[in-house]
Amino acid sequence: MSFLKLYDYPRGPYPARVRIALGEKGLQSQVESVFVDLRTGAHKKPDFLTKNYSGTLPVLEIEPGLFIGECTAITEYIDNLDGNPILTGKSPKEKAIIHMMNRRAEIELLDPISVYFHHGTPGLGPHVEIYQNKEWGLHQLAKSIKGMHYFDSFLKGQPYVAGQSFSMADITVIGGLIFASLLKVPIPEECEALLEWYARMQNRASFINRLDF
Amino acid sequence: MSFLKLYDYPRGPYPARVRIALGEKGLQSQVESVFVDLRTGAHKKPDFLTKNYSGTLPVLEIEPGLFIGECTAITEYIDNLDGNPILTGKSPKEKAIIHMMNRRAEIELLDPISVYFHHGTPGLGPHVEIYQNKEWGLHQLAKSIKGMHYFDSFLKGQPYVAGQSFSMADITVIGGLIFASLLKVPIPEECEALLEWYARMQNRASFINRLDF
Repeated sequence: MSFLKLYDYPRGPYPARVRIALGEKGLQSQVESVFVDLRTGAHKKPDFLTKNYSGTLPVLEIEPGLFIGECTAITEYIDNLDGNPILTGKSPKEKAIIHMMNRRAEIELLDPISVYFHHGTPGLGPHVEIYQNKEWGLHQLAKSIKGMHYFDSFLKGQPYVAGQSFSMADITVIGGLIFASLLKVPIPEECEALLEWYARMQNRASFINRLDF
Repeated sequence: MSFLKLYDYPRGPYPARVRIALGEKGLQSQVESVFVDLRTGAHKKPDFLTKNYSGTLPVLEIEPGLFIGECTAITEYIDNLDGNPILTGKSPKEKAIIHMMNRRAEIELLDPISVYFHHGTPGLGPHVEIYQNKEWGLHQLAKSIKGMHYFDSFLKGQPYVAGQSFSMADITVIGGLIFASLLKVPIPEECEALLEWYARMQNRASFINRLDF
């Protein structure tokens, strides 16, 4: 592999998803990180929008000028490069369950907490948050807490979010909890299975070393 | 294949994504459709929530008691059953581009038009739409129109949403335009490339026959 550029903000929760996936695949050393300063709204400026219309991080440049946005798409790419996917599933059934739980982690936890940040708090500041809907933001905060309870109940019966193995779906829940932590939104203490699972996740090398490039 | 049950509402835009994918794979005859009446809110009731926590359609039951929600997950499943994926990509690069454009079609077009329906209009009625945020709904309508212009500009340079071949990403844009049509939100007439592409899509057998089971 000769060329992988990751446009990101290393401490951001969505970039963390790709950084953890790279760590799980042992690919961190293959990637050059290009810092995009969320705080100045660099991701909403015309130059960046030509790389990703949606104006979000991370983006992986996989060939000069070929920019892949969206964490799921980037994870599919890096997980399949060596022909041995360990994060996105091998069989149709594994792919189905992992993609379902990954999307559910976005819908019920990570995306709502992100919307809360951008709408229910000052977010990145008035120069970036051009439109805010505070009521919607607070509604999404409540949804994300409900999502934590859902994943807690789910993890009472199985060791990982998509079943018996670590996968992309775990990474997405991790992203949600990283975001919650940044916003000082605690995991409810009664969510014992979720807390136990998150303690295990935080001990993985891919989590510990995710900022090391 | 001995058992596939699709819980859906045949005329719904999200179920259409799976119905079209089944048609592209020649699998319609393998699937039993189970009608879930959105109009009565059957998808938000406890019995259905045990099948899909998010309370959305469609859901594919792939083994007795194993329920797969989320269109992308269902499409990954049915596309890989025969070992010859034609909708979700074969190479890492194809998977990356298709998943990116699929997710972008959700974020920029299909999901916003859905939020507009559920928040900016009476939606499924007060017995189903327990919480509405009209300002957010109208904001999302504007986003979806902007999304149409984005896909129009994209389709000026290539025949399909993810490049040179039909894929899951085309199906998701089709879902967005089906939803827009149900809500009488027209495709702007200046979006000539999008209109030409959509005319081609509507001529595909999988679109024409999508309600035939």
